[in-house]
Amino acid sequence: MSEKPNLLVSSSAVIGRFGNLLPSAKVYLLDELDEDELDRLLPSIDCILVQTWWPDSLTPERISRMTRLRFIQSGMAGVNHIPFKHLGKRVMVSSNAGGFSAGVAEFAFALMLAAAKRVVKLDYALRTEEFDPADWGHLSREVVVLKGRTLGVLGYGGIGTAVGSLGRALGMNVIAFSRHPGKVAGVQIFHGGDGLLRVLRRADAVVIALPLSKLTVGLIGSAELAAMKADAVLVNVARAEIVDEEALYRHLVKFPQFTYATDVWQIKRGKETYASKFPFLKLNNFIGTPHVAGGSSVLTGEPGKAAVENLMLFLRGEVPRNVVDPSEYI
Amino acid sequence: MSEKPNLLVSSSAVIGRFGNLLPSAKVYLLDELDEDELDRLLPSIDCILVQTWWPDSLTPERISRMTRLRFIQSGMAGVNHIPFKHLGKRVMVSSNAGGFSAGVAEFAFALMLAAAKRVVKLDYALRTEEFDPADWGHLSREVVVLKGRTLGVLGYGGIGTAVGSLGRALGMNVIAFSRHPGKVAGVQIFHGGDGLLRVLRRADAVVIALPLSKLTVGLIGSAELAAMKADAVLVNVARAEIVDEEALYRHLVKFPQFTYATDVWQIKRGKETYASKFPFLKLNNFIGTPHVAGGSSVLTGEPGKAAVENLMLFLRGEVPRNVVDPSEYI
Repeated sequence: MSEKPNLLVSSSAVIGRFGNLLPSAKVYLLDELDEDELDRLLPSIDCILVQTWWPDSLTPERISRMTRLRFIQSGMAGVNHIPFKHLGKRVMVSSNAGGFSAGVAEFAFALMLAAAKRVVKLDYALRTEEFDPADWGHLSREVVVLKGRTLGVLGYGGIGTAVGSLGRALGMNVIAFSRHPGKVAGVQIFHGGDGLLRVLRRADAVVIALPLSKLTVGLIGSAELAAMKADAVLVNVARAEIVDEEALYRHLVKFPQFTYATDVWQIKRGKETYASKFPFLKLNNFIGTPHVAGGSSVLTGEPGKAAVENLMLFLRGEVPRNVVDPSEYI
Repeated sequence: MSEKPNLLVSSSAVIGRFGNLLPSAKVYLLDELDEDELDRLLPSIDCILVQTWWPDSLTPERISRMTRLRFIQSGMAGVNHIPFKHLGKRVMVSSNAGGFSAGVAEFAFALMLAAAKRVVKLDYALRTEEFDPADWGHLSREVVVLKGRTLGVLGYGGIGTAVGSLGRALGMNVIAFSRHPGKVAGVQIFHGGDGLLRVLRRADAVVIALPLSKLTVGLIGSAELAAMKADAVLVNVARAEIVDEEALYRHLVKFPQFTYATDVWQIKRGKETYASKFPFLKLNNFIGTPHVAGGSSVLTGEPGKAAVENLMLFLRGEVPRNVVDPSEYI
């Protein structure tokens, strides 16, 4: 290339940390541009690095003026925030699921173990003085040893693979649901709607590690929950909308030994929202944390590094990894 | 042996499950003996299997009449409940730490991850509506990714070894404190008082997996806590009395980013007691569960099987494993 590509970055933090990107691109920081400067720049932008959610200032109208845009790198694992319907067919979008694998898989394990061992429920009972020593016997029998049990992983990408490895280290049998038929040593992978149900029926603990797309929204509904064991653990570190909220609430009320543990929440009016018309937080078979798994990973630097390395592939004229299919999102 | 040894068992459950023991011994179930029958039997008892705590009916006076007693197998991992000072010098006592390794190590990991990921604290904040979305930033930065961090294991017996293996699977650097100089691949083992402090100084998370004995009671006091990182996690799945209660409370109040997570509680008036004059359960950097790790393991059958297998060694005239040194307990 005779000239460096123009890169628009939605936040300066990653550039401060991974300056090795700079020799390959002319970098513009969105936060440092005023409205006029941004408008002048639009027709010359080749690629965008969006570190978190899609910026409000990049309106559909402005996107339509980015005629040279060819590539968008998401800093987050998910890409459901990218405005696919306003992008032309020549714009590739890459997710950053791999960059979050270790941190989010660890978090999924923390939720799975907290649920299986009843850590939150027992701590809460002691803390609120609701614990009756006469209940010790049946409460201790609720606590599950996961070694030798079956872990079902839904989605076997970067995060799912890391979850599967941890499961095997714990001595669990690992089965997975994936669209991609690839072989993984020691992991039985199922496909299609029947494959999903087969995983759900057999697993003692299930971790959702799927992207949110047209194919996965509401994937876990009442029939899927009904297929699961009555005392199973369901962990969500992906996106809340993959699970049907009403079906889940009814299932938790009906099966008090079934536990749902989530780090992710429904997006309502454009914002992830902890409140719901279904009072999940009143149930002692629900565990919730305010979407902190990804944030904790960012501090390790791995997600920023992974996003920049993938962007470098594009800047060098190579094919970037984790390119998503826009038709699954529009 | 011309005659089968006489075995006194404190509970029938293990015999129902591991009847393969029966051909090698004449088994008497304590629960099925009346006072007179027990008194008549005492001089002929060769060995005892104590499944949980030492039975009240086996008083010091009755122990003195068990003149043939040579071996006591503990069903629990700890042996601090065995009345060593009333046993003659010819009575060997074996612990059952190995039988609980997988289940208790898993539980230690559940507590360590719940603490490192702030699962209990964050769930509680959402549940009590004390969570302010404005706090999200600093709360998510408290959440620690353990991969690449250092795990310190205090005591490298059955449970400690299993904890170390899980730590390595998580990508942690594992260091340990042990009296036994044995070599373990990939684990640096320290000895002595200085060794303890070196482990405590370097570790981001510490798991206590030591027996409670004269050597370990109060081992973790104010100096040891002060040596630890201000935001470290300390997990106790062994015995509460290994940690000085008052020093711990003061440390937790002084260092709000330090977390103590425990499944074990002080024995008060002969009973494990959740209440304390130090209000641990009011602190959000304390996590407590009511001693359920061992109970959950019992259901897998592994501890019962391990105890019986070790007892079989004695019955066959071989040297049993995990024989403890009485001088550390008297």
